[in-house]
Amino acid sequence: MLRNKAPKFISERFSLYLRALTQLEESGVKIISSDDLGRLAGGNGALVRKDLSYFGEFGIKGVGYNVSELRREISSILGIDRRWKVIVVGAGHLGSALIGYKGFRERNFEIVAAFDMDRTKIGTEYLGVPIRDIAELPEFVRRERIKIAVVSVPRESAQAVVDLLVSSGIRAILNFAPVKLHVPEDIFLNNVDLSTELESLTFLLTNLGGER
Amino acid sequence: MLRNKAPKFISERFSLYLRALTQLEESGVKIISSDDLGRLAGGNGALVRKDLSYFGEFGIKGVGYNVSELRREISSILGIDRRWKVIVVGAGHLGSALIGYKGFRERNFEIVAAFDMDRTKIGTEYLGVPIRDIAELPEFVRRERIKIAVVSVPRESAQAVVDLLVSSGIRAILNFAPVKLHVPEDIFLNNVDLSTELESLTFLLTNLGGER
Repeated sequence: MLRNKAPKFISERFSLYLRALTQLEESGVKIISSDDLGRLAGGNGALVRKDLSYFGEFGIKGVGYNVSELRREISSILGIDRRWKVIVVGAGHLGSALIGYKGFRERNFEIVAAFDMDRTKIGTEYLGVPIRDIAELPEFVRRERIKIAVVSVPRESAQAVVDLLVSSGIRAILNFAPVKLHVPEDIFLNNVDLSTELESLTFLLTNLGGER
Repeated sequence: MLRNKAPKFISERFSLYLRALTQLEESGVKIISSDDLGRLAGGNGALVRKDLSYFGEFGIKGVGYNVSELRREISSILGIDRRWKVIVVGAGHLGSALIGYKGFRERNFEIVAAFDMDRTKIGTEYLGVPIRDIAELPEFVRRERIKIAVVSVPRESAQAVVDLLVSSGIRAILNFAPVKLHVPEDIFLNNVDLSTELESLTFLLTNLGGER
């Protein structure tokens, strides 16, 4: 069953497959083998075939995948063939940066509101996004049927915010606070670990850059 | 050769192996098989064995890996068994959030300075980190032997900043600007794509959450 197969890491691989397929399509490549796709995405062909096998049968044995077709299928698997409304909780530096992040809108994510406790921010707008009182969050989430929230509050407040989000009906949370959060089993939580991103560079410097 | 094997994605897997091994160690587990480690990190045993094979021979065939030993080896492979000095370019919302990010210091990354072009920011400090004139960057990087820079400027200025970093001697760049950057072959560039992080949630909502 998919849930037992560490789906978060599967979806990251699908994002990598999607990026590789988009580049292949732009380069005019029509057909690709699972081994080549795996290599381009930094994995291997067996993992590509296994990941895809959860979602049906793709490609022709001994020939490969149709690049455009597989790109569309993976967009649909990732759920980004539709627009999603997103709220941001915590309108500090990171929250403001996320509101201004141009990559979200380009990929069909729309930040519709931010929430904060700071009286000097509440009632203002940032880049056209209203900053609301966190006390209004439960009603807003229900009325607007928001499913996704981004948490950009200090680590000290993160668990209380997440509890409020869950009780308000949020189903999926992208958390930037560097702290382990607890959510019910049916809530999807993705923690962005910025240290891991720096580790990818120290790995390269150490192993390929002669910086040990 | 390692460079041809998409090392960025290998290092992300090593970060996942490290997190899994740290949890195992905290739970008192002494020995783990490559298949179990692969499963915990969302991959498979073959990939674990292949990834480790670039760095030597680990574990005992038919038995598994010593958890503590492999955790130390992977810390060393990731290059995080030492302290790294890091600079941030762009002291806007995202730059300030990164300066305040507690996860960096905990993992041995120290932000020693931020750089900006904004005259009202230059000469000030944020959370003890001095904000300097970007004109001083080349000399600072050389004098302090900085190897790693984080780019948190608007996408329009990102390429110019990266060119300046490279000519100043920076070897590795963590880029948050949602734009494709060009760097020489011997410079390590890691682009953080925040949209991919949201895609991981829409994937779960779509496939496991009944939100299609």
